[in-house]
Parts: sequence; C-alpha cells; structure tokens
Amino acid sequence: MEKVYLDNTAATPLLPEVREAMMPYLGDVFGNPQSLHDWGDGAREALEGAREQVVGLIGARADELIFTGSGTESNNLAVKGLALAAQNRGKHVVVSAVEHFSVLHSARTLAKWGFEVSEVPVDKYGMVDPDDVRRSLRDDTVLVSIMHANGEVGTIQPLNDIAAITVERKIHLHTDAVATVGNMPIKVTDLGVDALSLAANQFYGPKGVGALWVRKGVRIMPLLDGGIQEGGRRAGTENVPAIVGMGKAAQLAVRDMADRSRRLMALRDRLLKELPAGVAHVVVTGHPRNRLPGHASFGVEFIEGEAMLMLLNSKGIAVSSGSACTSRALKASHVLIAMGLSHETAQGSILFTLGIDNTDQDIDYVVEMMPPIVDRLRQMSPLYSRFMKGKGGN
Amino acid sequence: MEKVYLDNTAATPLLPEVREAMMPYLGDVFGNPQSLHDWGDGAREALEGAREQVVGLIGARADELIFTGSGTESNNLAVKGLALAAQNRGKHVVVSAVEHFSVLHSARTLAKWGFEVSEVPVDKYGMVDPDDVRRSLRDDTVLVSIMHANGEVGTIQPLNDIAAITVERKIHLHTDAVATVGNMPIKVTDLGVDALSLAANQFYGPKGVGALWVRKGVRIMPLLDGGIQEGGRRAGTENVPAIVGMGKAAQLAVRDMADRSRRLMALRDRLLKELPAGVAHVVVTGHPRNRLPGHASFGVEFIEGEAMLMLLNSKGIAVSSGSACTSRALKASHVLIAMGLSHETAQGSILFTLGIDNTDQDIDYVVEMMPPIVDRLRQMSPLYSRFMKGKGGN
Repeated sequence: MEKVYLDNTAATPLLPEVREAMMPYLGDVFGNPQSLHDWGDGAREALEGAREQVVGLIGARADELIFTGSGTESNNLAVKGLALAAQNRGKHVVVSAVEHFSVLHSARTLAKWGFEVSEVPVDKYGMVDPDDVRRSLRDDTVLVSIMHANGEVGTIQPLNDIAAITVERKIHLHTDAVATVGNMPIKVTDLGVDALSLAANQFYGPKGVGALWVRKGVRIMPLLDGGIQEGGRRAGTENVPAIVGMGKAAQLAVRDMADRSRRLMALRDRLLKELPAGVAHVVVTGHPRNRLPGHASFGVEFIEGEAMLMLLNSKGIAVSSGSACTSRALKASHVLIAMGLSHETAQGSILFTLGIDNTDQDIDYVVEMMPPIVDRLRQMSPLYSRFMKGKGGN
Repeated sequence: MEKVYLDNTAATPLLPEVREAMMPYLGDVFGNPQSLHDWGDGAREALEGAREQVVGLIGARADELIFTGSGTESNNLAVKGLALAAQNRGKHVVVSAVEHFSVLHSARTLAKWGFEVSEVPVDKYGMVDPDDVRRSLRDDTVLVSIMHANGEVGTIQPLNDIAAITVERKIHLHTDAVATVGNMPIKVTDLGVDALSLAANQFYGPKGVGALWVRKGVRIMPLLDGGIQEGGRRAGTENVPAIVGMGKAAQLAVRDMADRSRRLMALRDRLLKELPAGVAHVVVTGHPRNRLPGHASFGVEFIEGEAMLMLLNSKGIAVSSGSACTSRALKASHVLIAMGLSHETAQGSILFTLGIDNTDQDIDYVVEMMPPIVDRLRQMSPLYSRFMKGKGGN
C-alpha cells in the first residue's frame, strides 16, 4: 500500500542532516551547559551556536531568543509573561478568535487573574481586519496577540497592518508564528512585532523544542522559575540535543526555503484545484491566495471529517481534520466556527499539509482515493440523503 | 590526560540502550501522538509504553503521571499548580530553606500572587526537622514542598515523618525527588506524598524531559494551557523521543538499581574518607550517613570553589561547586548558608557526584590530584595566610 503523509502541521519528519547534527549531544557531549568544566563548555558552545542559527532564520539578535520546550510553551510564556510584566500599566489584552488554544487558553487564564480579554473576529476566510484590532484597543491594553498564519485553514494574517497600529499606540504585539517560521521568509524587524513564537517541529526539526523571540528591551515575566538559564527568562536544564537540532533545521530552512516553497505551492495548488473539481460539495476553507505554501484545507459537506480520516488512513494517507492539539477532543473547530462556516462544511473539515517529502504521485493518489471514499460516506449519511431529497434527488 | 566526569548531578551521560530506544522516534516514527492515523498511533503507543515504564519506577498508576520538559518544570507545575488549585481553601505554603531554586522561586512567585510562604530551617547537615514543619502549619496552609534529597549536599530528608504530619492535617505534600528517583528505591505510596517531581537526566535518560506524579484525585492547575495532552494538565506536543528515552532509562534503573547503588556507595565512601584524610581543613558537607548513594560533598576551607573547579578541570576532572542551575551566577549557595556553614567552608564548596561509569581508578586519580591543587590555591590565598598567622604558622 502507498504511504502518503500529509499531516505536516501535526508533526514534520526529522531531516537526516538534523538527526546527524543531534547525535553527538546524545553521546559524548552530554554536559550541562551551565557547568564550569570542559563537558559544560562543549554543551554551551553547541547551545549558543544553535541560537545563532535560529536567529539567523528570523533576522534577530542572539540575546533576544529564549529556547522553550514547545510552541505551546512559547505562546504561554508570551501571552502570560508579557501581560504580567506590564500589568501595572493596564490589564487588557486582545487576541483573535482563531488563535491556537495555547494563546486562547493562556488569555483565559489571564482573565482568571483579573485581566480583561477582547477577541477580534475574522471574516469567512479566517482573516483578521486590522480595523477591528484598532477598535478593540483601550487605554489599558498592554498586549495584542495575533497569529501569523492559522494552522487549520492556512490563512496568513495582515500582520504588518496590525503592527502599524500597535506600534503607533505603543502596545506590545506578539505573534504565534509556529506555522510560518521555517516555511516562509520572516524578518522580525520587518514584521514590526515585539515577540514571536516558533517551534522546531514545524520545519523538520525535533519535537521538544521551541523558542520565543522577544525584542530587546521588552520585559517579560518567566513562566518557569528557578535557575539562571536563558538570561533568567526560562529556568531548567537546556535540552541541548533538541536545541542543536532546531539550529540545524533553521540553517537548512534558510538554505532551502525558496525551493521548498515553490515545490509545496505547486502541490498545494493541485489539491486546491483538483479536489473540488473531482468531488461534489467540496469547498476550500481559508483564504484562496494568502495561505501557507503547503496548506490545502477543505470542507467536505454532508460527512464527518473523522470518518474521512479513518478511511483515508486505511488507504495509507495521513491527514487531519483540525489541530492535532485538540483532535482527540472531537469537538467542532473554534476556527471554523469563528469563520461562520455552515455546520455542513465545518463538520467535514479536512486538511492536507504538505511536506518536503511529498511528490506529484502523492497528490495523484489522494485525488484518486478521495471520490470513492466521499461517495461511500455520503451513501451512509442521513444529512446527505435529506439534502438530496430536498433537491428532488434520490 | 585522564578524563574523569564526577558531575552527574548536573547531567548524566545517556546510556547506549536509552539512545538506541530513542532512535526510531528520531526517524520513521515521527507522528504526533494526538493524530488520528497510523503515524499518530505509533507515536502514541510509544508514549503510553514509556508512561508505564516510568510509573513502574515509582510504584504509581499511569494516569497519575504528567510528562514535562524538565525537573524544573515539574517543580514549577507542582508548587504553582497545587497551590493555585487549592487557593479557595487558603493561601499559605511551606517550603524548606534548602529547596532547589525551581521550588523556592516558584514559591516567591506565589508570594507575588498573594500567598504567604513559610520557610522551615535545616540543621547543620541540611536536614529538616519534622517538628519544624508541624509548627509551620496553619489553618490556611494548602501545600508543603520538601525535597527528597538535596543535590548540593546529598542529604536525604525524613520525608516519611513529614508525610505523617501532612497526612494527619490533610495538607498536600509535594516532594522534589529529582535527585533520588532512579538512584534510590522509591514507591510513592510508601512515601506518603501527594506529588513528586522527577527528571530523566538524573538517571541516565535524556535532557528535555521530566515528569510530575500527582496522586489520583488531587487537583492541579496547568502551567501550560492549550491542547488536551497529558489529560489536559500539560499542553504542548509531546516530546516523544525523549519520553521514550525516559521510559527506557526508568526500566534500566529498576533492573540495575541495587547493583548501581552498591558500586556508587563504595566509591562515595572512599571519597568521604580519603579526601579529608589527605587534605588539611576539608570537611564533609551534608549528612554523614543519610545521603545520596553517589554524592560526596566537601568544604575545602580558605579557597574558592570555582578556582578549584578550574584547576581540576585542567587535570581532566569535572566537578561542581553547587547547583548547575546557578553555577554561573557565582553566588554563595543558599543551601550552605541555610546550614549555617562558616564562610570559609561555604566558599570552598565542592561536590563529587558519581555515575555508573566511574571506577576505583577515577577515585585514585582524584585523591592524587586534590592535595597539590589545594596546596597551590592556598599558597595564593590571603585568607589562608591570615589563618596561619593567627595560629602562629608561616
């Protein structure tokens, strides 16, 4: 059976070069970077080398980068840490309705701690209107957190326009760039943000490591208290092998990004065109053009996304119907609900997220497999028979 | 030159069997455990297998274990999460004066959030008196956090006696067992605690992974909000390779603990006996008997610990003068200060923490190298010349 992995938003494979770079740190170079001896020196040099590689990917300074354990931790640190550090100036934060749960639930925790949280809406493409951000700002707003691109529907937000507003109002802007860093060219200085979250496992680096970039001079309260690692902003023994892997993955992303993007976009555009053409009642979700290079998402009407996943899996195809962080909760996606999608479209949510190993043959296979699977599920769907009866069909 | 690593409290080497167990998860089995397809299933089975292995080491149930990114994160989650979940019953917490900074600074953060924190003292061996814990308890005490053993001076606390008090008073007891789990037999049910922190890198597992055991039924507030991983108690994509490594390291610790302990204790006891015999003005710090199997710590009077570290390093010997998490801060250890050690003893702090690779030859080498290094440093020490003059010496 074919094996086609199209769930790179949930996890990317580790590049062989990245694994190779990590190996010494799973072997002889096992010291603690904080230790004052040769074993510590070897680990610390690796740590700082990786930091240079990661900031090279986002156009930042080394002392502005905090390594964390995941994109989720980066988002928690950003939202809670920036808000708490600024709470003497005000206790109002703004997020969009389509943020990842690590941002939304961090904001909910802030609300428990006496903050007020405003949620800006999105349009039917999942796009935030910068004017809505402007209208949500108050005199006591201390933080705006708007993602760079959405992992469920691929939509890229107009971050520059939002930053123009927050810069003018002198309000800190954080962006969850987990879906974009390593997959699109990013310079933090051009984006105009004050903090930016990234995760290695979104660009062929290892799990267990993320980072938060915080602009020099911006105060942040640590989430993990303890030792003096990461400039006192994130305690805990550094995960040296994973950090080295993130560094290598960043270096490779810089080198290969243009090539990768071109290939991914071509495959993505085939999916976006051929799937709706080959299967009835399939609509593209998210923005038709301003979307992640490897991201094709759809609403397949009148069937359940999970059932589709199972049948595709039985054919060797791995896809997702939403965020991996919530897939086992089996609830309707807050992103699709915020976009105002119909129940029929939202429940049949399916996303294909491409990676650098994917080929045109993979797309051929998916385009061939989808119609019979959808047909089979629709034959069992009471929703679909109701719809067809309403149309005067069978 | 000889290479003798005696800083296993800062970081242990990764066992070859552990690295071997991790490799598939740095390769083909790269899926996200939350994903609903074969790639996700493979990762999830590995995750749950590792969970069984880790709870096997501490005599717990699988659903009671929360994987984290480090011992520091486990301690932060325990201290903040247990206190915040119980704050409607009271806002008083008790810690010992010799806790790791990840506990002490978490308590300090709680203090900023309106909690009151009591610190119980220790005796000259770094030992907590259970009666002091009893006296510190109030009607509004919701959490006591006392470490199992201290990483700087090796002293093992009378945790059972402390648990007898907290159980009677129905107050939650957390213990930072990072230094003991994997190195001493532990059954959480016997200890009488409600939560226990552990870290893989203290028992020949990888960096980047720790765990917090929380007794079934005890409420805890998450530190990392977001997805539904770890039963909703710790969001973020699971670090599968490191977690698998922790599982394997736990399994090997169960198998080999008795052997390892016997060997480490023999080497430790040689150091505890031979170093004070071979070098003048060297005192053992910490408890003479109730101490970690591989832990020998000393105060070498009239010289600076860091200078000793540098010279030992130049002879290929890696040791520490305190906690790796704070070694680069170069401050006097809060542990030694709490023990009431004299300035002369505290500043010459040095710890040898043995690992399973160490041999009698390593101890021979250290015992041979120490006297000339100490002599050389003392010749340069104004403190020592003052002391000798006071005694009518040179």
